[in-house]
Amino acid sequence: MATKKSNSFGEKAIILHKKLKGKIETKSKAPVKSAKDLSLCYTPGVGAVSSFLAEHKDQVRDYTIKRNTVAVVSDGSAVLGLGNIGPEGAIPVMEGKCQLFKAFGDVNAFPIVLNTQDVEKIIETVKLISPVFGGINLEDISAPRCFEIENRLIEELDIPVMHDDQHGTAIVSLAALINAAKVANKKIPQMKIVIVGAGAAAIAVAKLLLLEGAKDIILVDSKAIISRDRTDLNPAKFEMVQKTNPRNISGSMEEAIKGADVLIGLSKAGLFKVEHIKSMAPRAIVFAMANPVPEILPNEAKKAGALVVATGRSDFANQINNVLGFPGIFRGALDNNVKKITPEMKIKAARSLAALIKKPTADYIIPSPFDKRVAKAVAKVIK
Amino acid sequence: MATKKSNSFGEKAIILHKKLKGKIETKSKAPVKSAKDLSLCYTPGVGAVSSFLAEHKDQVRDYTIKRNTVAVVSDGSAVLGLGNIGPEGAIPVMEGKCQLFKAFGDVNAFPIVLNTQDVEKIIETVKLISPVFGGINLEDISAPRCFEIENRLIEELDIPVMHDDQHGTAIVSLAALINAAKVANKKIPQMKIVIVGAGAAAIAVAKLLLLEGAKDIILVDSKAIISRDRTDLNPAKFEMVQKTNPRNISGSMEEAIKGADVLIGLSKAGLFKVEHIKSMAPRAIVFAMANPVPEILPNEAKKAGALVVATGRSDFANQINNVLGFPGIFRGALDNNVKKITPEMKIKAARSLAALIKKPTADYIIPSPFDKRVAKAVAKVIK
Repeated sequence: MATKKSNSFGEKAIILHKKLKGKIETKSKAPVKSAKDLSLCYTPGVGAVSSFLAEHKDQVRDYTIKRNTVAVVSDGSAVLGLGNIGPEGAIPVMEGKCQLFKAFGDVNAFPIVLNTQDVEKIIETVKLISPVFGGINLEDISAPRCFEIENRLIEELDIPVMHDDQHGTAIVSLAALINAAKVANKKIPQMKIVIVGAGAAAIAVAKLLLLEGAKDIILVDSKAIISRDRTDLNPAKFEMVQKTNPRNISGSMEEAIKGADVLIGLSKAGLFKVEHIKSMAPRAIVFAMANPVPEILPNEAKKAGALVVATGRSDFANQINNVLGFPGIFRGALDNNVKKITPEMKIKAARSLAALIKKPTADYIIPSPFDKRVAKAVAKVIK
Repeated sequence: MATKKSNSFGEKAIILHKKLKGKIETKSKAPVKSAKDLSLCYTPGVGAVSSFLAEHKDQVRDYTIKRNTVAVVSDGSAVLGLGNIGPEGAIPVMEGKCQLFKAFGDVNAFPIVLNTQDVEKIIETVKLISPVFGGINLEDISAPRCFEIENRLIEELDIPVMHDDQHGTAIVSLAALINAAKVANKKIPQMKIVIVGAGAAAIAVAKLLLLEGAKDIILVDSKAIISRDRTDLNPAKFEMVQKTNPRNISGSMEEAIKGADVLIGLSKAGLFKVEHIKSMAPRAIVFAMANPVPEILPNEAKKAGALVVATGRSDFANQINNVLGFPGIFRGALDNNVKKITPEMKIKAARSLAALIKKPTADYIIPSPFDKRVAKAVAKVIK
């Protein structure tokens, strides 16, 4: 049924996209209706602004779109759950992201979809087009390439750069877990946490949970538990195995899940079975975030004994949706002239987001994307 | 007084720019107010559009902003009359250009200001960011670099690329000359035409006039007439001397102007003196296009005997303004899926623009930028 529903959205989406022929447009913020308008927005008046900015490069933000404009950059290498579909297929997703930036954060965003998947070329291109942008949102770039691209751009640019698939997901997941922990009456440092999936998002979630005080996290990839006896780990997983799996258990996903307090899925449809959930500790927390079809449906997980269940889907309670993060993060970064988004800011954003819910319940651990308080609550701590 | 006036525009422009903090913004073309909106514009619905476009790359125009979006690309190397002021100083001009694209052509345009002046890097960067764009408007890039950048991009991209400083100026100048010739009762093939200035715009004007049938064009650079006995010509000027100056005269600008029917200035403020105009043929045509202060003021040129005078200024009759060209050119290219803007299209655009004036007079050889017929008249011949 879930698949049928998403198919029906797909058909309607195709019709809508064909009708719109582009989901965003550019608009002038000032009238261009008279010779005088032209003289101020364009020649000759604009010459004075140009001369001034050439002399005062540090004031570009005060006179141009840089103040409120973010590039949404993708190479089409990991688009949604579709994989490496290339730049053309990535365009509708990046346009959609730009719509969300505007609707939820009042940030002007423009899609930059790159006709290359070469790491060095991506880094150089983003650097070369950076003058008009006040921030860079990296999107749907495959691991492990996304790590180097993000790290290098953070280091080499003086505007905030964030790979949303990693950090947006991590921030919103942590916010949800903070409230889920209250509902389950457990503390994050005492929880046994299992994260299934070991891609960019899973690793970012693990890192942020560690920073929030989690002590016992086990990552599981498509083969097995990520343990210190594995000899096949890529550098990103190898880095993580130093910081996770303190009991150094190895074996299958089933082994990891047994007795866990928290099970976070960033993997694939239907991977979690009723028996898995049954094997968890009492008052279990399950985040089944595969999209559009989660690792387990909420009603099944609850029947198997889970206390709190969240997914990425809007048609179930507790939607862990990145749109709760990135609009406010960049809103805050732009307003406060933040040059780097630090791990501490991400923690604060998650806590601020969680704190919007005064009394969390099993079906209300995270605000709705349409809760008007969200972007402001996040933005105010990005400083 | 002219300088004072443009200074006063400058002060007002600085105030306006500081207030606006960006002259353009992005807007969503569809509502993003409900979970259903999100499901169609973004996940899960958008996945179907992405999958479709990954399979049908040739249909990207029908489903994305590529259908109506142009990049306004500059490296800040030749901004207005200000010269090589770099990317920061270029931003307000490119934003202004984007406003004009929207206001006059209903084209969505976005400024791409590059943090490099390396020809190869500029070419590569534009190619790499091209997937979301339906056209590339190159702007304020210095000669001779602009020639190679434009030529290579035209060759290597399958979307229209035009350096507006060259071709926009050429198209609008030719339109003005077509009507000025009617007023003066002269024919372009019989005219002696002198072009002072030998930069990118001047060379483009000369080339388009040759294509329209002009037989006797003399280019003059800051040193002297461009003649075949010059040994100091760069490749662009060397190419032009093969096609111009049929009488092979040499010497100073004064020598060239003597007896000329048409004097086109693309040079600097105040360069033309009353004596120069007096030395021209009867019913002389003078286009003094230096900006913001022309080579000679219209009333002085007329007192000296010129019949038709045009400038780049909006406060005199006969403004030769690029905004009469580029919005319609890209409007037509986008609507008609034109992959290259050919010289023949430029000639047709100039003729179509000129034909908007049924009975040209000395003070009305070119339509106003606010004449609503302009963009349509240009767009309809770009096919």
